[in-house]
Amino acid sequence: MQNRSFCMAYIKTVVAKGKSTLNKQPKIMVYSTSDVEVYADLIREAGYTNVVAAATPAEAEAELTDAEIILCWRFPLDLLARPEAASVKWIQSMGAGVDDLVRCEHISDEIILSRVVDQYSGPMAEYVFAYLLYIAQNIARTRAAQSENRWDPFLTDVLAKKTIGVAGLGSIGSEIIRKARAFDMNVHGLSYSAKRADLVDRHYGPDEWLAFVKELDVLVMILPLTEQTHQVVNREILMAMKPTACLVNVGRGLSIVERDLIDVMREGHLRAAILDVFEKEPLASESPLWQLPNVYVTPHLSGMNTDERVGQFFLENVKRYLANEPLHGLVNRSAQY
Amino acid sequence: MQNRSFCMAYIKTVVAKGKSTLNKQPKIMVYSTSDVEVYADLIREAGYTNVVAAATPAEAEAELTDAEIILCWRFPLDLLARPEAASVKWIQSMGAGVDDLVRCEHISDEIILSRVVDQYSGPMAEYVFAYLLYIAQNIARTRAAQSENRWDPFLTDVLAKKTIGVAGLGSIGSEIIRKARAFDMNVHGLSYSAKRADLVDRHYGPDEWLAFVKELDVLVMILPLTEQTHQVVNREILMAMKPTACLVNVGRGLSIVERDLIDVMREGHLRAAILDVFEKEPLASESPLWQLPNVYVTPHLSGMNTDERVGQFFLENVKRYLANEPLHGLVNRSAQY
Repeated sequence: MQNRSFCMAYIKTVVAKGKSTLNKQPKIMVYSTSDVEVYADLIREAGYTNVVAAATPAEAEAELTDAEIILCWRFPLDLLARPEAASVKWIQSMGAGVDDLVRCEHISDEIILSRVVDQYSGPMAEYVFAYLLYIAQNIARTRAAQSENRWDPFLTDVLAKKTIGVAGLGSIGSEIIRKARAFDMNVHGLSYSAKRADLVDRHYGPDEWLAFVKELDVLVMILPLTEQTHQVVNREILMAMKPTACLVNVGRGLSIVERDLIDVMREGHLRAAILDVFEKEPLASESPLWQLPNVYVTPHLSGMNTDERVGQFFLENVKRYLANEPLHGLVNRSAQY
Repeated sequence: MQNRSFCMAYIKTVVAKGKSTLNKQPKIMVYSTSDVEVYADLIREAGYTNVVAAATPAEAEAELTDAEIILCWRFPLDLLARPEAASVKWIQSMGAGVDDLVRCEHISDEIILSRVVDQYSGPMAEYVFAYLLYIAQNIARTRAAQSENRWDPFLTDVLAKKTIGVAGLGSIGSEIIRKARAFDMNVHGLSYSAKRADLVDRHYGPDEWLAFVKELDVLVMILPLTEQTHQVVNREILMAMKPTACLVNVGRGLSIVERDLIDVMREGHLRAAILDVFEKEPLASESPLWQLPNVYVTPHLSGMNTDERVGQFFLENVKRYLANEPLHGLVNRSAQY
């Protein structure tokens, strides 16, 4: 029915090829535990008629037969081992991180994987600076004073002249750097490729974590989760940071040894840890992180996107898929993102 | 003893001329209700021996005789009507705003007035973006959820693509604009001179307040207080703003009719008012502003500077004064700032 091949080599050269003219309406499954009907309606409004929505693993299982395209967030990957999943040709993640999909052994190399790119950079950088400025300006203090009708002047801290280190120099890291420049910060960077090393005042490679972190007032982690970055920030790295430094993780929880971070924050070594991602999400309600002073827990919201924007990104990719054009955000599996 | 003349025309051309070589150590009075000894020590460490510190009007009165230079914040201006004040030749404000000094009838045109410039821009712009991002990211919500160990994801707002209007295009306004560009905002501006009109996408003059505000998602007031800007933002202007807009005042409280602002915020017309300045400071504890939802009261801290930085600015000016060189931050009295 379909004649499609998938070339692994490099993102730019990969194209989704071939498509039977008999199959103008591939079956599209949307999977998400929230807003799934919003996505489905967006896709139907664009003229696609064969669209099904699944909000639970059971619903996904029921609709799996003949599904060719899956638009999803946290898809129940076990289902992809089923014989009915043989129809799946392309999985589009609603997010930027696809470590779960890349690791999944049920997704053969013939299945196209894509992620949303270039839509998270701005919002994620806004998140980073919102929390850094919240701490520098001590807004908690001004809000507390206001609640008591109390005039309480004090000297605020500033970001200017501080040194920020960005681990991960992809599009999101680049945007964080751009905003850091507007705040007159010194900018260091660490990356696993030498990609975009020219964006930073000082560049470090994967073997230079200790040297990298010890100079920093702010460390922002925006690394993809790969074998190389898995739990790369451990107690040794955390203790090498200045006690006055702030750590921000907007990448993946598993890049940090969470147990070590809890210990270090308990010992009061770092000024603040701003965490939007965790080893396991949602963060368990019994995690000590919630109640640690100077730990800022947010529910993986820095990279949230509007349904509409993700929907538009997907629809553009559907057009490309049907026209055998290269998809946006195609995943390079050898790089694991 | 001294032969000094003061030329009004333009700041750049004004110089403090002449200085008796007999008077190598002019009497310097430092006046401030806080940290006054810190300033005095800084000045003494720079080699000046004739330095007195006054933290109360009574102390200032006792030390007034022969004082030639006054470094001050909120000086008791009545004292300048005294015959002992005839020795005063130069008043350096510790702040950027000098409306009180400019209005004071006891300060003759022969007295040099100077203010601190180019030191507040960065910190004030950080304040503005800290509070705008605090609201956009709804940090109050994430903090509340964290205090209850509650995973509560939601879609945050962003500054990107919003329109910010900056009223007042001096050095502080320019810095706010620079940061707004890094947040990909559209930038409009209003100023009383056409100064720096090229910094903004759309420029408005003093007669165009209504047209200026109605397009804005954020209005930042950083106007000096002059006859023209006194209570320029009244009910009519506030009601012309979008109900979803945020107002930020980091200029002078008297630029806004505070009574009108209270009414408008009570009616829930604006999304937020972020106020660092007030008609009367400290803001009275019985002011309704403290407890209005969506009003953010801060105690005139956005432009706070470290004693050391203000001290260094002053010491550089003392050198210039003694060398008959033009002072930094010389006040143009006809412009009133």
